[in-house]
Amino acid sequence: MAHLVTLITDFGVADTYAGVLKGVILSISPACSIVDITHQIPPQDVRAACFALSTAYAYFPQGTIHLVVVDPGVGSKRRPLLIETEDYFFIGPDNGVFTAILVKPGLKSVIEITNGKYFLAEVSSTFHGRDIFAPIAAHLANGCPLSRFGTPVSDYVLLDWPQPSVIKPGEAQGTIIHIDRFGNLVTNFPRDYIKQITGKRAFRIECAGVVITQIVPSYSYAQPGELCGVFGSSNYLEISVTNGSARDILNARPGDCVKIITADADRDVSG
Amino acid sequence: MAHLVTLITDFGVADTYAGVLKGVILSISPACSIVDITHQIPPQDVRAACFALSTAYAYFPQGTIHLVVVDPGVGSKRRPLLIETEDYFFIGPDNGVFTAILVKPGLKSVIEITNGKYFLAEVSSTFHGRDIFAPIAAHLANGCPLSRFGTPVSDYVLLDWPQPSVIKPGEAQGTIIHIDRFGNLVTNFPRDYIKQITGKRAFRIECAGVVITQIVPSYSYAQPGELCGVFGSSNYLEISVTNGSARDILNARPGDCVKIITADADRDVSG
Amino acid sequence: MAHLVTLITDFGVADTYAGVLKGVILSISPACSIVDITHQIPPQDVRAACFALSTAYAYFPQGTIHLVVVDPGVGSKRRPLLIETEDYFFIGPDNGVFTAILVKPGLKSVIEITNGKYFLAEVSSTFHGRDIFAPIAAHLANGCPLSRFGTPVSDYVLLDWPQPSVIKPGEAQGTIIHIDRFGNLVTNFPRDYIKQITGKRAFRIECAGVVITQIVPSYSYAQPGELCGVFGSSNYLEISVTNGSARDILNARPGDCVKIITADADRDVSG
Repeated sequence: MAHLVTLITDFGVADTYAGVLKGVILSISPACSIVDITHQIPPQDVRAACFALSTAYAYFPQGTIHLVVVDPGVGSKRRPLLIETEDYFFIGPDNGVFTAILVKPGLKSVIEITNGKYFLAEVSSTFHGRDIFAPIAAHLANGCPLSRFGTPVSDYVLLDWPQPSVIKPGEAQGTIIHIDRFGNLVTNFPRDYIKQITGKRAFRIECAGVVITQIVPSYSYAQPGELCGVFGSSNYLEISVTNGSARDILNARPGDCVKIITADADRDVSG
Repeated sequence: MAHLVTLITDFGVADTYAGVLKGVILSISPACSIVDITHQIPPQDVRAACFALSTAYAYFPQGTIHLVVVDPGVGSKRRPLLIETEDYFFIGPDNGVFTAILVKPGLKSVIEITNGKYFLAEVSSTFHGRDIFAPIAAHLANGCPLSRFGTPVSDYVLLDWPQPSVIKPGEAQGTIIHIDRFGNLVTNFPRDYIKQITGKRAFRIECAGVVITQIVPSYSYAQPGELCGVFGSSNYLEISVTNGSARDILNARPGDCVKIITADADRDVSG
Repeated sequence: MAHLVTLITDFGVADTYAGVLKGVILSISPACSIVDITHQIPPQDVRAACFALSTAYAYFPQGTIHLVVVDPGVGSKRRPLLIETEDYFFIGPDNGVFTAILVKPGLKSVIEITNGKYFLAEVSSTFHGRDIFAPIAAHLANGCPLSRFGTPVSDYVLLDWPQPSVIKPGEAQGTIIHIDRFGNLVTNFPRDYIKQITGKRAFRIECAGVVITQIVPSYSYAQPGELCGVFGSSNYLEISVTNGSARDILNARPGDCVKIITADADRDVSG
């Protein structure tokens, strides 16, 4: 069966780098299907690439090879990795970009890619996406067994991912981890986490000095232009504006602080 | 035969939303070919999506499934639609985005998608592109008969599309409906409409207080930097600047007024 | 075997032009695979398209059809070309965009496309990408012999490509030919050219009044924020900033002057 390879990079779509990756893959494995997830990761932003991967990989067919090339350490001693989980393969630099995968159950093996036989004949020191990662993905798609590419490692790099924390009963602090094209502010509060903290009580959101009390099932439940809280498509709390941009209204950026506070928490304070 | 699915969305290319759509489609229908028409529809701009679809859909092979996800009403009661015409299928929200298709001859059936059996197991309230529209497209590509997805409707939403109008003999008023990457101002004057009004007489264009007398067969007939009128590739009158941008020179925006005036019309006025 | 068609255009990704090209190709040749190299060539920038093509084409499988539509002369008398080399086919306007291919060994034939039988039924005067180039690519992919499309020509257009030049022993002057998404300034100094001039001596780079002495194997060898010289993935000298943008720091643009100067050259001057 033809294999599927997805691409997440910071190459942008103006340069030919992403096209070249595809040419290399198709030269080695002509029956491959290649799907762009995104090439617009901000340059060298390993954390943003990790988040993008975490939101997308699980929607692809079993056996998909996810190639991630956001690689500020290219040409240094950072290792090239090949990861196998129960459902997928992941290929890219050992710089933390696979943190979301490596901390999850289902991990089968993590291999440092060392076998130069599967690289392009000439390996540059600035474009391992083309010279190492793409060829490995293509040879893997061709059915080459994992053990040929290198040897297992266990000391791979993990990012320190920001977790929300309880400040006091009924009040927790988190952060904006992503802002999408619509200006939705994606926080790091999972739906379950909030449920645990608030129970069935109402809660409000505080961000950038603004209080948001309207928590709605979908954008269309709020009036156009109004700020609201929504559990987004990845089940994280988002701050949104119906037919508008919460980013523009709150002048928000990734990393900004977000609080959720239940009505009870207030009573505790005043009592 | 493998089916072709095209995508028109307002997801942009920085987020993973468009990639996720593809993953969902390929998980259900692995032999599908997917073609991006555009993901850069301005956020929530149903009218722009309708125009984009109208310029592109007919160039695809018979049987192509056109998926359009510009969906400001996601999570509300707006209905998901599946449209069959003599040559194509269309899937997306019932918000007018399919107006250009629905008013044309060749319409075979319009179905409100209701059968949750063909949705993803968990349907979010913010991303029906992923949870409803993409799975339906994939099951349709797999050969599932239309009648399984829902029931026919006839009260679908139609946009009120701006039409050019004759002001007086030899003079008509229209509008800019699209501005492309080159800064060409696409008007809503079809070639045939103008022929009918002007006959074989010369005409001039007025836009943003500027008079354009040069109507040329192609950009290269005007001098670089000069404003001219051209019948573009969709047979609408465009205001263009050879090797330049009419948008920048006229500071024009979609919705701006455009007039065409024959020489005769002037004589009428002065006489 | 299914043929591969690549696309390089200045259509951008917001309009439907690139999608329409794909629809036309797949309508004629449904088994084609289509790969976007880039649609973000600056409007009408034939030189940038030529450079993009030169960096990418050779990474694709033998037999690939490279379609390039950057076509300021569309609708004029500029000719449509079909080029065959030992390994590839190239289709596009005769405006110099294929210079990098036409001056290389391995050229087999250059054909002016004249046979309207292989065009779309109606040929517009503004979108030959859709009406002429895409259909020709698709018919070629279907196995139609080259001789059917037109007749050989030898007076094709070649761009005058900027070459670096030796100013005095140990000193040479070149130019920035491309700036990528990362802000890397790609010069027209090939690695071999510099080796020939500098031998094994150290050299410095001068650009925008700034002297760069640090020549490193890869970005990660310089400190973040520092300017350095790197031989990039196409073996041209690049001016880069680790985890930053040399474009922003030097306020540089394509066409700006770059010098390389060996230590010897200085001694020559002072002596």
